Amino acid sequence: MDYEKLMQPALEAAKKCLEEGVDVPIGCAIYRGEELLATTYNTRQAERQVIGHAEVKAITEACKIIGDWRLNECTLFVTLEPCAMCSGTIAESRIGTIVYGASRPDADVHTARCADILPKNVKIIPDICARESVELLQTFFAKRRSANN
Amino acid sequence: MDYEKLMQPALEAAKKCLEEGVDVPIGCAIYRGEELLATTYNTRQAERQVIGHAEVKAITEACKIIGDWRLNECTLFVTLEPCAMCSGTIAESRIGTIVYGASRPDADVHTARCADILPKNVKIIPDICARESVELLQTFFAKRRSANN
Repeated sequence: MDYEKLMQPALEAAKKCLEEGVDVPIGCAIYRGEELLATTYNTRQAERQVIGHAEVKAITEACKIIGDWRLNECTLFVTLEPCAMCSGTIAESRIGTIVYGASRPDADVHTARCADILPKNVKIIPDICARESVELLQTFFAKRRSANN
Repeated sequence: MDYEKLMQPALEAAKKCLEEGVDVPIGCAIYRGEELLATTYNTRQAERQVIGHAEVKAITEACKIIGDWRLNECTLFVTLEPCAMCSGTIAESRIGTIVYGASRPDADVHTARCADILPKNVKIIPDICARESVELLQTFFAKRRSANN
């Protein structure tokens, strides 16, 4: 699997999120094999909905497409390490592999890390397109800071 | 707070779930103070949707009603100890107190317990109407076993 290539739709989604300027720019893509099933980005703030994180939205959409709540054959790509809610949702969906970009700087401090929540048989591939993923986050927070000054 | 009394809508929802006979009977209720905001039950199997657990549905509904993804003033009642996905969603929603009935027998084995995922400042009240909650689960699994024989 060419992880960098397959991360591109998630990065594109995060860029669209950044353009909208409301939510922390995080994008996600789910594949069945190498078939792209769903591409989503974070809309928690825009929709005032806690389950608006990119991963939960992509998993919800993939369940609808596949017609099952079990996504054993799927791989999830996300630009930032999943939070506890998204890690738990990945665990419940039985996704076999997750690939992420940047690591969460607040993990360990506030909540459990994804590796502590996911079952041991889930394969975790970190640091794929991490630099691009972090740059989107930094751009968002820099804009927010300058807007607040 | 009269925990037993406030657990009743969650138990009623779990009973309705048992009557439908498709999903593991688990019910949930969310209150703002003592005002009932949402009552839900598990529909994962019926809807073929991984986020069909009672707690995620109740939190989603409460966000819509309140118009915010932060549910700081809310208390969540659920008949069974939340799984990792639901615990993560509770953590993200900033719910301050959770009250549950039965403990999950599979916790510790398959996934993290809710107390390991929820931040330390979330109050956890276990064993409220635990006997009634367990009886609903036992009835469901007994029916399923006899249907498979």
